[in-house]
Amino acid sequence: MAAAQTGLDETTIPSLRFDDAGLIPAIIQDAADHQVLMFAFMNAEALEATRRTGFTHFWSRSRQKLWKKGETSGETFKVESIRVDCDQDCLLVEVTPQKSGAACHTGRRSCFYRKLGDKDLIFES
Amino acid sequence: MAAAQTGLDETTIPSLRFDDAGLIPAIIQDAADHQVLMFAFMNAEALEATRRTGFTHFWSRSRQKLWKKGETSGETFKVESIRVDCDQDCLLVEVTPQKSGAACHTGRRSCFYRKLGDKDLIFES
Repeated sequence: MAAAQTGLDETTIPSLRFDDAGLIPAIIQDAADHQVLMFAFMNAEALEATRRTGFTHFWSRSRQKLWKKGETSGETFKVESIRVDCDQDCLLVEVTPQKSGAACHTGRRSCFYRKLGDKDLIFES
Repeated sequence: MAAAQTGLDETTIPSLRFDDAGLIPAIIQDAADHQVLMFAFMNAEALEATRRTGFTHFWSRSRQKLWKKGETSGETFKVESIRVDCDQDCLLVEVTPQKSGAACHTGRRSCFYRKLGDKDLIFES
């Protein structure tokens, strides 16, 4: 509704909507097989660094600092494309992992390795 | 870091982390071809309704109300699985669209139909 009213959904003019904390959600997807690898937030600085370098950067809310994906793990993500959604308040970043393909800090390929069961979480990559 | 410290990442016990506004991000993905269709937020009530009915429900921040996906467009999403990420603060919901497959209010299959170009947005579904 908001998108239709403001015309954000049919324009070619970028007008990204960062939230009150200056953040925009970013979904990270493998460009090859479309598996969703992780989810994080970018601020304007992280988005600028991502676009300038061609590798994903994020804003850590817990550490309150910019971080490059892979700066500790070594698993960097090369950016293939950045998409915006209809109301310009979410990003979908298609990437090519440059090393082992372990997006998650646990060593798994994706952070989404558990399903919500009736009463518990079920491990299933 | 936070996940490793608190053990949220290797447990089978659900301990979903809603934000200060009581919301958790939800990535909606087509179960068949893994295209990311949309992104929205759930609160506890929306998640409960989603699990109870088997169809996606969300919390509208602009309208401050619970809504069922498709209540106006007719395009409902049957839930195939709900995944949680390593630190339990994001959901990945795999769905089967029940009708035309137009997830977006603009009539497009996905809300992410534009790429971020150097200076403008490029339409490309």
